[in-house]
Amino acid sequence: MVKITFPDGNVKEYNKGITPLEIAKGISRKLAEEVYAAAVNDQTVDLTRPIEEDSSLKLFKWEDPEGKHAFWHSSSHLMAEAIEALYPGTKFGIGPAIENGFYYDIDLGEGKLLTEADLPVIESKMIELARQKKPFTRREVSKSEALDFFTRKNDEYKLELISDLQDGTISFYEQGNFTDLCRGPHLPGTEYIKAVKLTSIAGAYWRGDEKRRQLTRVYGITFPKQSLLDEYLVLLEEAKLRDHRKLGKELELFMFSPTVGPGLPIWLPRGAKLRERLENYLKKVQAEYGYQQVITPHIGQKELYVTSGHYVKYGKDSFQPINTPQEGEEYLLKPMNCPHHCEIYKFKPRSYKDLPVRIAEFGTVYRYEQSGELHGLTRVRSFTQDDAHLFCRPDQIKEEFCKVMDIIFRIFKALDFKDYIAQISLRDPANKEKYIGSDENWEKAEAAIIEAAAEKGLSTTIELGEAAFYGPKLDFMVRDAIGRKWQLGTIQVDYNLPERFELEYTGTDNQKHRPIMIHRAPFGSMERFVAVLLEHTAGRLPLWLAPDQVIILPISEKFNDYAQKVVGFLNNYDIRTLFDDRNEKIGRKIRDNELKKIPYLLVVGEKEEAENTVSVRKHGFGDQGSMRLKEFADLVSGEVKQQMSNL
Amino acid sequence: MVKITFPDGNVKEYNKGITPLEIAKGISRKLAEEVYAAAVNDQTVDLTRPIEEDSSLKLFKWEDPEGKHAFWHSSSHLMAEAIEALYPGTKFGIGPAIENGFYYDIDLGEGKLLTEADLPVIESKMIELARQKKPFTRREVSKSEALDFFTRKNDEYKLELISDLQDGTISFYEQGNFTDLCRGPHLPGTEYIKAVKLTSIAGAYWRGDEKRRQLTRVYGITFPKQSLLDEYLVLLEEAKLRDHRKLGKELELFMFSPTVGPGLPIWLPRGAKLRERLENYLKKVQAEYGYQQVITPHIGQKELYVTSGHYVKYGKDSFQPINTPQEGEEYLLKPMNCPHHCEIYKFKPRSYKDLPVRIAEFGTVYRYEQSGELHGLTRVRSFTQDDAHLFCRPDQIKEEFCKVMDIIFRIFKALDFKDYIAQISLRDPANKEKYIGSDENWEKAEAAIIEAAAEKGLSTTIELGEAAFYGPKLDFMVRDAIGRKWQLGTIQVDYNLPERFELEYTGTDNQKHRPIMIHRAPFGSMERFVAVLLEHTAGRLPLWLAPDQVIILPISEKFNDYAQKVVGFLNNYDIRTLFDDRNEKIGRKIRDNELKKIPYLLVVGEKEEAENTVSVRKHGFGDQGSMRLKEFADLVSGEVKQQMSNL
Repeated sequence: MVKITFPDGNVKEYNKGITPLEIAKGISRKLAEEVYAAAVNDQTVDLTRPIEEDSSLKLFKWEDPEGKHAFWHSSSHLMAEAIEALYPGTKFGIGPAIENGFYYDIDLGEGKLLTEADLPVIESKMIELARQKKPFTRREVSKSEALDFFTRKNDEYKLELISDLQDGTISFYEQGNFTDLCRGPHLPGTEYIKAVKLTSIAGAYWRGDEKRRQLTRVYGITFPKQSLLDEYLVLLEEAKLRDHRKLGKELELFMFSPTVGPGLPIWLPRGAKLRERLENYLKKVQAEYGYQQVITPHIGQKELYVTSGHYVKYGKDSFQPINTPQEGEEYLLKPMNCPHHCEIYKFKPRSYKDLPVRIAEFGTVYRYEQSGELHGLTRVRSFTQDDAHLFCRPDQIKEEFCKVMDIIFRIFKALDFKDYIAQISLRDPANKEKYIGSDENWEKAEAAIIEAAAEKGLSTTIELGEAAFYGPKLDFMVRDAIGRKWQLGTIQVDYNLPERFELEYTGTDNQKHRPIMIHRAPFGSMERFVAVLLEHTAGRLPLWLAPDQVIILPISEKFNDYAQKVVGFLNNYDIRTLFDDRNEKIGRKIRDNELKKIPYLLVVGEKEEAENTVSVRKHGFGDQGSMRLKEFADLVSGEVKQQMSNL
Repeated sequence: MVKITFPDGNVKEYNKGITPLEIAKGISRKLAEEVYAAAVNDQTVDLTRPIEEDSSLKLFKWEDPEGKHAFWHSSSHLMAEAIEALYPGTKFGIGPAIENGFYYDIDLGEGKLLTEADLPVIESKMIELARQKKPFTRREVSKSEALDFFTRKNDEYKLELISDLQDGTISFYEQGNFTDLCRGPHLPGTEYIKAVKLTSIAGAYWRGDEKRRQLTRVYGITFPKQSLLDEYLVLLEEAKLRDHRKLGKELELFMFSPTVGPGLPIWLPRGAKLRERLENYLKKVQAEYGYQQVITPHIGQKELYVTSGHYVKYGKDSFQPINTPQEGEEYLLKPMNCPHHCEIYKFKPRSYKDLPVRIAEFGTVYRYEQSGELHGLTRVRSFTQDDAHLFCRPDQIKEEFCKVMDIIFRIFKALDFKDYIAQISLRDPANKEKYIGSDENWEKAEAAIIEAAAEKGLSTTIELGEAAFYGPKLDFMVRDAIGRKWQLGTIQVDYNLPERFELEYTGTDNQKHRPIMIHRAPFGSMERFVAVLLEHTAGRLPLWLAPDQVIILPISEKFNDYAQKVVGFLNNYDIRTLFDDRNEKIGRKIRDNELKKIPYLLVVGEKEEAENTVSVRKHGFGDQGSMRLKEFADLVSGEVKQQMSNL
């Protein structure tokens, strides 16, 4: 008999050799259908793996990352089986599960490539094979047996992978006619896979090395129910429409230039306006909370980052130092704004009464990323943080955390993010020596963060051991309008930099003390935030934030003068108004400007000019009828005022 | 006889060998006393040089740079004579006239140095020697004679200078007991020098080479009248008070950190506010003129600057390229914003109707300067230009110039610069092949600039041959409150970059055409402009622009609550209000805040709290008596409104 301990603490005895799947079946038939993998003594295994000793047991469902992982990993094997059946002689690289599905890197042989058109054929084959209900069976093999198998199969990729493995650690998984080198775990059988969508094909160098052969990477996703796939496909379509890279181009917000450099965002006029409005909004809110804006250069001497410790950490993998033609100086593009702000703190002596000193900057930092990993505004090589550093006394941490949370909540509300959670990252209590700063300070700071979050009613998870070595932190994550999660702002305590920069304040005791530093960025970065905002709103920005609020569309050039008059009238009400004076048909003008998602389109022609009115079309709501100029100006001003009053 | 042609075109005959001084005496005794040098056939010479052939003649007075130059160059020799008399055996390097006075680099011998305390002694000796009325006499010498003289004098510096000269081009000047290697010209005699001030001592490497010996550089200035020196000393005192580096520290506007790097300005909170207000003002004005703000990264691929031609021009002497850890890319800190803006122009196809496209950015550029040449905000290594590039058709140049001038005049008026001139730089008509762009375009552009300046009533000078190879330009120079001249903004036509970046627009003929680019920056840079503004206003910024407009000074901590209430009241009127809650005596609070030049200081105590009033002190005007809160708010709002209505 073996004793099995369940996650809720219950312990039950079973026959030795029982499998997690049998245990699930013993609990309920329904449960057995809903689980895809298990963890025995915290090791993730197949549901069919016999349990030979007393163990803890967790069962993983679709909701669990481990459940999805086993599901998609098995799907990757199923796809490989289908491809091998359709294209005999195909060689296989690696085929892992990923965040949303799986892929397999394959080599169809010299000169042979897949196209998108081949994907439905492979999908059908997968469904056909899945319906054969073949079990995934695991087999431990010796290294020589493994090498022998793939030598016979003539698959040099697997041979290379095996040659890197230790004898005694190698396993094969087999389903139907397909055998793969694999650690597992896998589903009990292919019949679990009910719905398949192969999503795309890409090139991928073998082992990520551009000097080696380029394989074909086939991406796919599968589900245990057709309805889940249908939902996913709708979401995918919706996500495509909301793709900020697409919207960025259509709304003329930003661009990238291969000549300027990959990953370096260029903000076009409309994007610069949007960013400026966001920055001004944040500046206004932050001013209310006693923040002081500064402006620092985008470079700093290497020595500055040696002092801060950033050079040791980032130096090698980042943009390399800038030499001067004389004087032997070395500068770095700044990877962080904090060292510059420490220098500003040191500009003059500070007393306990001056604290907290809150130094804020829309500060641009530079981090090298491989060009293949860049992605729109969410993965860039230069980005502008809505950064601030709060220098405070230990007894002020909690209040500062509360105030930062107030700011973050205001911003989330202003931008209509209703669904967010936070993670509190604390020390690993078993490894206190890994962290700098006194025990007392850590305890105070950790308690302060937990209390502050609780006081503010923030829904949080606590992760032990996830704190940075220099202090605990709080990370925010928002869920967008179609349910996707995005990592945004951070609040981070830091005992390290004040030490390294020898920051001081004079206490009530007239002695020198070290302040504590809090890093915080509610948006994270302007680039990332604008990306998330675009994906969240699908480009339909709230009226107060829209770079252009109104555009006048004259029916023909005859009415340009009247249109110009309307522009002047609305500008006097501080309504951001454009004028489409192109010599185009009105239908074309409406279509083009709908695409730009300008909130109000005003059509003007003979009737409007005669009556001193405009024909109003509201984006997403269509025709709103005719209005007098003043009436329309009041409508827009009122709507903005209403929105602003909630900020 | 020789025919002498005067600047007004008059021609007169004189005996051969007559000197400019004799001609001046012939015109009037007064004129002869007021001239210090002459140009004979455009070559600047001593007043005592005989004229042997028909010549043109100009006489130079104190007002002429050539007159001052001869005066101060002679003074440098006089100082050398005095030093040699006081410190026999001194060796002499070079001793030129400079913009404000002169200097001489001297070597007093191993271990011997001058101090500031020695300067009055030298001044007295100079006056004593000047009163001896010794003539400056010129003598042509052979190279061997020159070498022989300074070998005997044991002056290795002069020997080194002579060894670089061509035999037959060498002259000595002698006055009293002092003989110097010199080209001249000089004053007729030492008696012209009536007032002397030696201003400072510095170290200077021989021939600017830090590997060679360091000499002592003695700076001085002299005048033909004591009253001129007195005025100069007053100006010098005034200039010291207005030194923007001093004000920058006192007003806490900006700082430099040796750790961040020399010449990299860090804008402190008050400076950042000032800069933001200036930028917002300019953005507002520019928006009225159809400018579109963009934001571009501070770096660009080296290739971008190879295309633009900047790499060839600046590459070697500038900050060196930034390498990436992989992918072999090279980036440069941007030396100019124009290439980025050209890429933005290319973002979409442009038609003749879209032009002018006006792309504006507060764009930061980086230029390496030797650390010894850096000076406050006027000579820095990174600066933010109030840059814009106008892409227009050839027929739009004049209108665009007019509009840019309108913007510049508005700014000058807003910031109280009443005295400014401009220089128009045109092609050298004799060397047209040096310039790129068609003859027709150049003629059009030059005519457009001249006409635009004339239409706007701008006082200009025209310089032939001073245009850049890529187009003609207009440079503005302002005179500040104490009469000093500062170079500010520029408007520059460019035919080159549109060519290099292959910029295009579709014309009325449906064919592709090349736009013309105009670079313009009214402030020049934010750094330089703030420096000039501080020196011009002595830090007393106009109320609308002041980073902080009002500060509340409670008489004691008992009145902090009332002070806080006043802050809240004034903030509601958008009056930028601070609160000095330090536990200091009221006298100290007033002094400290006067130093910060905050326009209004409000003292509050028992009486004010009881009566709901404030005691108003206006910076520079003292006590203004007691006012009710609303009354004071109206006063400030009214003053700002009045100022803003003039912007």
